[in-house]
Parts: sequence; structure tokens; C-alpha cells
Amino acid sequence: MKLCRYGAPGAEKPGMIDADGAIRDLSGVLADLTADGLSPENLKKLADIDPSDLPRVEGEQRYGLPFTGTRQFIAIGLNYADHAAESNLPIPQEPVMFTKAVSCLAGPNDPVIIPRGSVKTDWEVELGVVIGSRASYVEEADALNHVAGYCVINDVSERDFQLSRGGTWDKGKGCATFGPVGPWLVTGDEVGDPQNLDMWLEVNGERMQTGNSRTMIFSVAKIVSYLSEFMVLEPGDIITTGTPPGVGMGQKPERYLKAGDTVRLGIEKLGEQGQEFVAWSR
Amino acid sequence: MKLCRYGAPGAEKPGMIDADGAIRDLSGVLADLTADGLSPENLKKLADIDPSDLPRVEGEQRYGLPFTGTRQFIAIGLNYADHAAESNLPIPQEPVMFTKAVSCLAGPNDPVIIPRGSVKTDWEVELGVVIGSRASYVEEADALNHVAGYCVINDVSERDFQLSRGGTWDKGKGCATFGPVGPWLVTGDEVGDPQNLDMWLEVNGERMQTGNSRTMIFSVAKIVSYLSEFMVLEPGDIITTGTPPGVGMGQKPERYLKAGDTVRLGIEKLGEQGQEFVAWSR
Repeated sequence: MKLCRYGAPGAEKPGMIDADGAIRDLSGVLADLTADGLSPENLKKLADIDPSDLPRVEGEQRYGLPFTGTRQFIAIGLNYADHAAESNLPIPQEPVMFTKAVSCLAGPNDPVIIPRGSVKTDWEVELGVVIGSRASYVEEADALNHVAGYCVINDVSERDFQLSRGGTWDKGKGCATFGPVGPWLVTGDEVGDPQNLDMWLEVNGERMQTGNSRTMIFSVAKIVSYLSEFMVLEPGDIITTGTPPGVGMGQKPERYLKAGDTVRLGIEKLGEQGQEFVAWSR
Repeated sequence: MKLCRYGAPGAEKPGMIDADGAIRDLSGVLADLTADGLSPENLKKLADIDPSDLPRVEGEQRYGLPFTGTRQFIAIGLNYADHAAESNLPIPQEPVMFTKAVSCLAGPNDPVIIPRGSVKTDWEVELGVVIGSRASYVEEADALNHVAGYCVINDVSERDFQLSRGGTWDKGKGCATFGPVGPWLVTGDEVGDPQNLDMWLEVNGERMQTGNSRTMIFSVAKIVSYLSEFMVLEPGDIITTGTPPGVGMGQKPERYLKAGDTVRLGIEKLGEQGQEFVAWSR
């Protein structure tokens, strides 16, 4: 099942994607797709709906965040061995965790603002994991039962803010619009094994990243289990699980995004997203 | 004005503290104290209420979080020169930022759970800053206009998780119950200058931390302005601004909390809080 929210910013309606890839209007069934709505029980109710029984949404639509109410947006760093190598950083012994500000969450195709003073704005295609039920000290074997589904995320990063401004990486990860999510939340039953998904990213039509989630150092199940030792994961929390090789910082010479650049990215079964990068202005 | 929420977990009512320190019931005026309710306009409406016109709440009451809806819980590290010294870390050139999981937020006097496997659970009395209105790229001179008020926070920390598990400090800062906040949100007009507040912390009745916010390296105004360059601050966001000397990690030999220990802490004008530390159990 593919769930989405569509419409103008702040006025999105819930939707479901039908077999033809068209949006069907869910707003007659529920007011909105929220964090609390991602529980196994609630998803089961939605799965009983035949999309072809819902009104078909005509015309070009903007996608918003696929659900509301995210309170924690957690990121895993250096989770692909090749990307660690291109970053000149050792392969971590345990998952590297940092935080993206939830205020950076954005629709999958909304413009991304290059922050004031930025000269190193970079791209990262990542598999996003969405928590469906509270997870605290969960075993790896049980971890995927707490996952509602998956989505495409561009973990937009400002490398100078991330690495040269002191302290944690968080400074370069949570700038406004740095968290495009979607177009859809695809439920776990439809995705199947999360460790075998092709992923890619293009800048101005040029392929920069090509990878597959099978080369993750730490699997989705391991990450959920691991994080749940250090914090309580709640419904609607999003974990972005690291990027394969090919980021701008890894190019020789390094290459970063400037106003007018466009980025497109996608993950097998999860759809595609694309952003125009724009200059900051007050 | 001192605002609070009181009552059993999950069933708190909004309250206001009167001149005698008693709780007055605000639930006839508003359903709850929420992040959106912290705007300057909303606080002004509440300030027009005479607490003595509200029903007095009798009997012993549990304090909950002083408001709901926090989406970002940001922390500043090493913000007191003496504490940086006791941590054997250099004085930072820019504010050190990390994140506490919002799922660790707890009432000010609720028990704190020592995480599974923890041997280095530590205390940190800190001045909490609560955002009242959206802040993005705000100047230092304007920054305090975005602050709704202040509160006492115990930035409970697991030093081994924080420093020895790879990556950022976040792993040792966001365990369940590691964020006691309150008892009150005290509005900025009542606090006045946030850079002249005595603060203290005791463990089992023994004074461990004694400080004053005047010895912060980076002021509240500087921190708000600085963070607003890297992320959008939203109403209800909490920034905890660093701790003065005297944490357990700084003792010779190091000293950490064990089940049965009690911690009390307070900040001038902002009240006191206290927690019993308890063992983790499933």
C-alpha cells in the first residue's frame, strides 16, 4: 500500500495510490494521515480499502509529506562502506547517529533553499524508515514489526556547517527544507525485504549516486533495535539510514549545489522525488 | 507569570501559580498549555488574568511538563568555561549543539530510569529556554523576543553512551526520562535578565553544582540567534543551555548515580525539581 498527502502546503489531503499510479482521495475515510494513524491496526484498516472504490484525483498534484506529526528525525551516518571511504572516514563499529531538525521536513518535490552563507550544499539519496509503533529496547528479530513503512529521503547536507562549525554534525543537516520526504509512504508488506532496493540520484540529469540497500553496513532491523536502546522511538518518527557513494563531497574535485541546480532521486518500489535548489533570501 | 500543568500523567490540566505559590486552575480558560499557546499574543491574554480569580487547587499535586507539543529539544554543550575544564575539553569557539530526543521529556519530579547497562548516569542542572515564536536567521538583538520563557532542566546524561559509543553525543542524552522539565514555565518578563540566575544541584542532599548563568560562554540571546542560522526554531522548542561545574564525570574519582539516589536542583526565579533515580526494568 502506498499512502500520500497531496495538495497545497498546509492544505494537504490524505491519498492512496492505485494500481495505475494515480492518487485516490482518502479524505472521505480519514481526516489526515498522522503519526498515530501509522499503527499496525490503523494500517490494516486502510489495507482493507480497495483504492478503485475511492474518488480518483485528477490533474497535476503537489505531494506534501506523506504523513504529519513526526517528532523525531534521526539519521545514521556512514552506513555504506564505500561512502565512508569516499568521506575519508573509517567504517564505524556501531551505527553513527545524529539528528535532523524536524523543522527541515519538506514535501518531496518542494524547492530546497541553499542556506545563507552556504558554499557546500550536498545531496544524499537515502532509504527512510518510518516507525509505526513505540519501540524501546526491541530485539533485532522483532524490530521490523515496529516499522510502518519506507520512503525516499534526500538527506540534504551542508558540509561546512556539518564538519567545520564545532560539535556534532547536526548543524549541517537540519537547515530549512533540508529534509524532502516522499512521494509516498510504502508499507512494509509491499516493500518486503528492505535490504535489496536499488537507489539512485542525478544532478542536472547526470547520474551521481547508484547503490543498493544490500550494501548497508547496519541493516534496518539492526538500526531500529540499536536506536531503541538509546531512546524511545515513537509512531511517525523517521530514520534516514545513510547514503551510498557519489555525494558531492566525494567528487574529485568536490562539487556542490548552486541555485538553479536540480536533483532527482529514487528508490526501487518507493518512487521518485526531485528538487530545484534555490538561493536563500529573507 | 508562572505557568504549569498538574495532575496524573496524561491527564494534566493547565495551571498558573499565584502570589502565594499555589496552583490556580486554568482549565476553565484554556484546554491545555500547548506549543502554539506560547506566542506573545497568547501569553499576553494569559497575563491579563488575575490568578486570584481562578479556582485554587488544593492538595499535593504532581507537576507534568509545563506545556505540550515540543518538537525539538536542542542542547548546548560546554557552555560554562569551568565545566569545559572539568571535562578536559577545550573552550568552544562556537556554541556546541547536540540533540536530546523529545521522547525523553518528563515531568520535573518524575522518577528517572537508569538505562539498561548504564554505569555512568550523570546530572546537569541547566537553564532551559522555551521558544514562543518562529525564529529563522534572527539577530542577537532580537533573539529574546522569540523566547516565551525559561524553566529548570536536568540534562541527564549517560557518559559512556555519550562519549564511547561512536558518533555524536546524542546517544547519551535522550534515554527515556532523561529530560525532566519544570516545575514551571516562567515568562521572560518575570525573569528579566537570563544571564544573572543562581543555579544549584544536590545529590542525596549534598551540594554538587553551584553556578550562575552569568558565567555562560554564549548568552541565551547569542544561542538563539546562532541556532536560528542552522535550523528553524518553532514555538514549544526547548533549548537547554549547558551546565556549570560539578557534574559526576568531573569528580575525582568520577561519581555516578545509582538506583535509590535522589537529585534536587533549582534555578533562581524558576523553582526547584527533584528526581529519584530507579533501576531499568522491562
